[in-house]
Amino acid sequence: MKVKWSLFTLVAAIALLEFNAFSQQRARTPIAIPDIPGFKALKFDFHLHTVFSDGLVWPTVRVEEAWRDGLDGIAITDHLEYQPFKADVSTNHNRSFEIARRAGEDLDILVIKGSEITRDMPPGHLNGIFLKDSTALAVTSWRDALDATKKQDAFVFWNHPGWTAQSPDGTSKWYAEHTELLEKEILKGIEIVNGRDYYADAHQLALDHNLTLFANSDLHSPAHMDYPPGGDFRPVTIVFARERTAESVKEALLARRTAVYSGGRLMGAEELLRPIFQQSVEVLNPKVRLQGSGRRTVQIHNTSGVAFELEMRGSSDNVNAPRQVTLAPGKIVLFTISAKSGKEIPKGRFKLDYRVKNLICAPGQPLNVQLELEAI
Amino acid sequence: MKVKWSLFTLVAAIALLEFNAFSQQRARTPIAIPDIPGFKALKFDFHLHTVFSDGLVWPTVRVEEAWRDGLDGIAITDHLEYQPFKADVSTNHNRSFEIARRAGEDLDILVIKGSEITRDMPPGHLNGIFLKDSTALAVTSWRDALDATKKQDAFVFWNHPGWTAQSPDGTSKWYAEHTELLEKEILKGIEIVNGRDYYADAHQLALDHNLTLFANSDLHSPAHMDYPPGGDFRPVTIVFARERTAESVKEALLARRTAVYSGGRLMGAEELLRPIFQQSVEVLNPKVRLQGSGRRTVQIHNTSGVAFELEMRGSSDNVNAPRQVTLAPGKIVLFTISAKSGKEIPKGRFKLDYRVKNLICAPGQPLNVQLELEAI
Amino acid sequence: MKVKWSLFTLVAAIALLEFNAFSQQRARTPIAIPDIPGFKALKFDFHLHTVFSDGLVWPTVRVEEAWRDGLDGIAITDHLEYQPFKADVSTNHNRSFEIARRAGEDLDILVIKGSEITRDMPPGHLNGIFLKDSTALAVTSWRDALDATKKQDAFVFWNHPGWTAQSPDGTSKWYAEHTELLEKEILKGIEIVNGRDYYADAHQLALDHNLTLFANSDLHSPAHMDYPPGGDFRPVTIVFARERTAESVKEALLARRTAVYSGGRLMGAEELLRPIFQQSVEVLNPKVRLQGSGRRTVQIHNTSGVAFELEMRGSSDNVNAPRQVTLAPGKIVLFTISAKSGKEIPKGRFKLDYRVKNLICAPGQPLNVQLELEAI
Amino acid sequence: MKVKWSLFTLVAAIALLEFNAFSQQRARTPIAIPDIPGFKALKFDFHLHTVFSDGLVWPTVRVEEAWRDGLDGIAITDHLEYQPFKADVSTNHNRSFEIARRAGEDLDILVIKGSEITRDMPPGHLNGIFLKDSTALAVTSWRDALDATKKQDAFVFWNHPGWTAQSPDGTSKWYAEHTELLEKEILKGIEIVNGRDYYADAHQLALDHNLTLFANSDLHSPAHMDYPPGGDFRPVTIVFARERTAESVKEALLARRTAVYSGGRLMGAEELLRPIFQQSVEVLNPKVRLQGSGRRTVQIHNTSGVAFELEMRGSSDNVNAPRQVTLAPGKIVLFTISAKSGKEIPKGRFKLDYRVKNLICAPGQPLNVQLELEAI
Repeated sequence: MKVKWSLFTLVAAIALLEFNAFSQQRARTPIAIPDIPGFKALKFDFHLHTVFSDGLVWPTVRVEEAWRDGLDGIAITDHLEYQPFKADVSTNHNRSFEIARRAGEDLDILVIKGSEITRDMPPGHLNGIFLKDSTALAVTSWRDALDATKKQDAFVFWNHPGWTAQSPDGTSKWYAEHTELLEKEILKGIEIVNGRDYYADAHQLALDHNLTLFANSDLHSPAHMDYPPGGDFRPVTIVFARERTAESVKEALLARRTAVYSGGRLMGAEELLRPIFQQSVEVLNPKVRLQGSGRRTVQIHNTSGVAFELEMRGSSDNVNAPRQVTLAPGKIVLFTISAKSGKEIPKGRFKLDYRVKNLICAPGQPLNVQLELEAI
Repeated sequence: MKVKWSLFTLVAAIALLEFNAFSQQRARTPIAIPDIPGFKALKFDFHLHTVFSDGLVWPTVRVEEAWRDGLDGIAITDHLEYQPFKADVSTNHNRSFEIARRAGEDLDILVIKGSEITRDMPPGHLNGIFLKDSTALAVTSWRDALDATKKQDAFVFWNHPGWTAQSPDGTSKWYAEHTELLEKEILKGIEIVNGRDYYADAHQLALDHNLTLFANSDLHSPAHMDYPPGGDFRPVTIVFARERTAESVKEALLARRTAVYSGGRLMGAEELLRPIFQQSVEVLNPKVRLQGSGRRTVQIHNTSGVAFELEMRGSSDNVNAPRQVTLAPGKIVLFTISAKSGKEIPKGRFKLDYRVKNLICAPGQPLNVQLELEAI
Repeated sequence: MKVKWSLFTLVAAIALLEFNAFSQQRARTPIAIPDIPGFKALKFDFHLHTVFSDGLVWPTVRVEEAWRDGLDGIAITDHLEYQPFKADVSTNHNRSFEIARRAGEDLDILVIKGSEITRDMPPGHLNGIFLKDSTALAVTSWRDALDATKKQDAFVFWNHPGWTAQSPDGTSKWYAEHTELLEKEILKGIEIVNGRDYYADAHQLALDHNLTLFANSDLHSPAHMDYPPGGDFRPVTIVFARERTAESVKEALLARRTAVYSGGRLMGAEELLRPIFQQSVEVLNPKVRLQGSGRRTVQIHNTSGVAFELEMRGSSDNVNAPRQVTLAPGKIVLFTISAKSGKEIPKGRFKLDYRVKNLICAPGQPLNVQLELEAI
Repeated sequence: MKVKWSLFTLVAAIALLEFNAFSQQRARTPIAIPDIPGFKALKFDFHLHTVFSDGLVWPTVRVEEAWRDGLDGIAITDHLEYQPFKADVSTNHNRSFEIARRAGEDLDILVIKGSEITRDMPPGHLNGIFLKDSTALAVTSWRDALDATKKQDAFVFWNHPGWTAQSPDGTSKWYAEHTELLEKEILKGIEIVNGRDYYADAHQLALDHNLTLFANSDLHSPAHMDYPPGGDFRPVTIVFARERTAESVKEALLARRTAVYSGGRLMGAEELLRPIFQQSVEVLNPKVRLQGSGRRTVQIHNTSGVAFELEMRGSSDNVNAPRQVTLAPGKIVLFTISAKSGKEIPKGRFKLDYRVKNLICAPGQPLNVQLELEAI
């Protein structure tokens, strides 16, 4: 036969094509949330799907998306019980992790092994991460599945507790089964954000039961279809870890050192949010001449990617200052300060009291901050 | 057993979840390239991959992407010979079409059945579209595969003829095998654009051999990862069809009524490009007062989404007019017109000669246009 | 003297420079709010300042900005009583109009002669437009100034009635003096929007006293400093005029045929807002297959530049449809429609009731609309 | 008279209004070009116009624009000889500086006193900066005017030497008069960029005659009309000064420690450009596993605002690396590295040779850089 199709050449050619698949605009945009003293602020998404359950992308896509979005790591958590594509895609609960892990090595993305235990409420859907073998969880009884996570020393958190498909009134309802899982030291975390939904009552449950906070995307579609670059950003769990390793991430989760970042809001314990604000915001020229005609403006630089929304607390007796200011990301904003009519400001230091409306320590409880200035 | 996992409820719940998967920002952006007298300007991408060959998305994603991007239709053209995921994904060459077709019905996207015949050069990679059964093409000999397309009355075009993996010097080389396919009336079209690459020599081959022009994305990744909204747009084959039906599209392809849109350029026959320009561009106030102190500005409105790049041809003897103007999409731009120093412009109509640098009739041959004004 | 400075050459050279001052990106972006049956929807800003009072730009800038922003016309309304730059800029209350008018002729922008009568409350600040001689208004008594507007057959409206500098509690307070001006047929309009402020109580005053609605920018800075392209848009008064002439605009103001567009909201009489919605929104495929597995999606195209925010009124007995949808400008959005669980939808036409939250007929009273579909 | 207009209240009210004129979106965007060892990289625009010559804005606008655009300082350089608005604006050559200086104090913008000496060619237009009294320059003879700059110990540079109004063929022609000014130690700098024009031959003149490089906007319009935020950026002269003071800026100009930033290009001496690149670019993981299946990607972080355009010099014998890469501002980009077919890379350090196409040391002479990696 004269013309013969050479598989070898073909595969080489296609491999080149594949090599180019991601070539255009392959850039990573760091998430500008600073480290805090003692801890790195690692960014994670611990809830993702692929075609190995009901997601719409190949596992490597989740790694590439994470790299581009500035994440440090992900967990792919395909459903164990729900696989609508199983006529076409093999049933192997460990497979999406295996594929993603290799891609993660190349891009320096930490890929954590996970699975979603997908049950009726209670207990609803739970993610096990830091698993060793997902197949062991594919059993009939949810109790057996969760016991298997414990045997593997995994970390389990409750997904979307206020999801209307399982909780039609939208509340995050705590069942006896959750108490049972808590007491068995299986349930250790809770999503207070899933996709674009924030569950304030789940946030309160986390505080009541000492659960680690999570914000995850639960992406099924390609990430940049749901969260196009330039629009709102996918939710992120910020893990305050000693090192950028899987072990250190697990230690941080067990120690509940997480905050969540979603819809422009940072939520978490005050002792984690305050240093983020302090690392991010600097008053460039704190000295203001409040008498006479000199400079009356203060310039404040926000080096982070978070738009801090400041609102004055109470009102100063003597000083006019902006009641509402947004410290736009990466920008320097202007505060115009003046003495109130008929008041005199003594020379020396003084403070202005603000709350940061989108730094939230507990439901309804924003972070209070002070700006320190000096009258000259 | 007290706690029983109810598959029914679960699936219902997940179905709701899936239902929501695409819910956010689910909007279609029309491609503002106007119809021309007698024909609709339908927008197609005839070269796409899914996990059923080496693509990275589920077939429904290709339909959703097409809908959002303002396309009228697509062909999914998974490789017949190359399926790197076959350990995990079933080998069924008709399957990606079946899945996509159903999604297409819901979103009113025309899904054309296709496959990529993936061979060494010559003849290289060829897409068959309007196929009836892709499996019949999965044979050892490329001649047999292409004969099978003919039996199915399919339309065949040559993919990325200047692809460096098969043509290291980047030229689009025409082999005896292509002549053979042409003479057998199998090969009828050619990609002059694949992804972000334009092959000027393939464009010339198309003109020499009367082949239909194609510009396709050849997407493997999620579309919005490679072409983020707001950046450059995926390549599109514009099909000038009598109706918005698959049959009418096929008739137009056979009649070579296509133009290609890529990287801000429109390329195709003059008789197709000229009416696009004419439908898009209007001189709002063609009367200019070239004597005295009256209006000297002409406002030109471009209602299309194409940024027409005008460059003056030659130079007017009497009139100063802009040498280079971009008619930005959707905008009205200003031409300042004046009599040249020492010249007088007689009252009455006059014309300014421009070429449209990014409307390309043949390699190196832009469309010439005239702006008609009137001196008053 | 050998080297002599030639004024002639210099001025020619500079004139060329000036000619180029606006050369870059000199484009006009139409405001996509459609005409309605019988009337053109002309876009105006009737309240603007220049260096001839306390504005920061030369009058021609106001015309260029208006042209770029897609306006049909403006009024420059420099303060008669407040001219902080008078040590450097001549006091001539007609001058900014004269300069702007000539620029307006070149760019086809209607420039209406105006002045701001700038007094303590009551009556506060009032704009006279369609003036003949601004100098006649520069008198000590505000009553005399306003009588002068009447003699000139001008149109007078009340500026920023809720401005906190004159109304510290932010309410738009109606004084006896306003009644006096109303009864003398001097006061005929009111700003319900000034800059980024909407005064709901001024909107109610307009309805109570049959005043023409205005939304104006009151710009002092360069427009694109306060309203950068791509951000929120300057407020606009939409005048529904028979023709695009100053006379026709005046007739429309006297007939109270205006709506205001500000912050993404359109406010005005129902008979003006409803046709805008109708001209803008089209259901592309109103036929839905609510039985079986056919298409369940409806595509709705919004050709205007307004993002209509739809909210379902009540709830349909039989049909699931989106409760909240934003019809993004220029986009096609998807409505997924289905029969409610256990319900059957008879074939034939049916309607879905929505309110358009940002089309506001009166304070607290959005426009109600119906989408007409057909079950097949 | 019962109703009396209170000037006091009015002015107070208007002052509040003025106070608010700039209130919206009043934010400063730093220009992310780093300091270099020993010197601050101060950003200046030394060529600006106001209504006191033929500019279209009040002087305070130039300060506000500079602050928002991240500049450290400006010079306002109104024409001494050309004042088309003199019928309306007073002729006082020191006035625009006086007004701007006060605004500069409030916003911490260094305002340098300047004037444009506006003559036919030769010598053309020259800017004197660090002047003491502009009025002394308003004399008939250009020689007298320039001698006056010397008496004031000012710094003089030649504006837009390739401006087509004075040099119709677009070349920057050096006249005997320029030699005269050079020898008299009056002429010390030259604009190689004015607005959007780069004059390569003026760049060469600067190198030939030891002149300080300048890139200035020469703005007449509002800055954000000509350079809308998000588009291309106004040209900037980068002054490498020991401190952020006017004195230190002057010392740096005299020592020729400037670079220019325009149209995404940085131009200047190699010893200034190289440390900017070094301060900006970091190879995050320089160790690559070129044998076997380990990581083959290198991640490179560009913390500056400049998009460095790298192009490989020559070609490595053994290593495949990207031929063209743009290090996008603020992003991390991926280099895929591999051994060439049939080659082996010994373990240990190796370098890749690139040129940075948009860092330009002299006309046609880009900066050469090396990326240091290590094979493991």
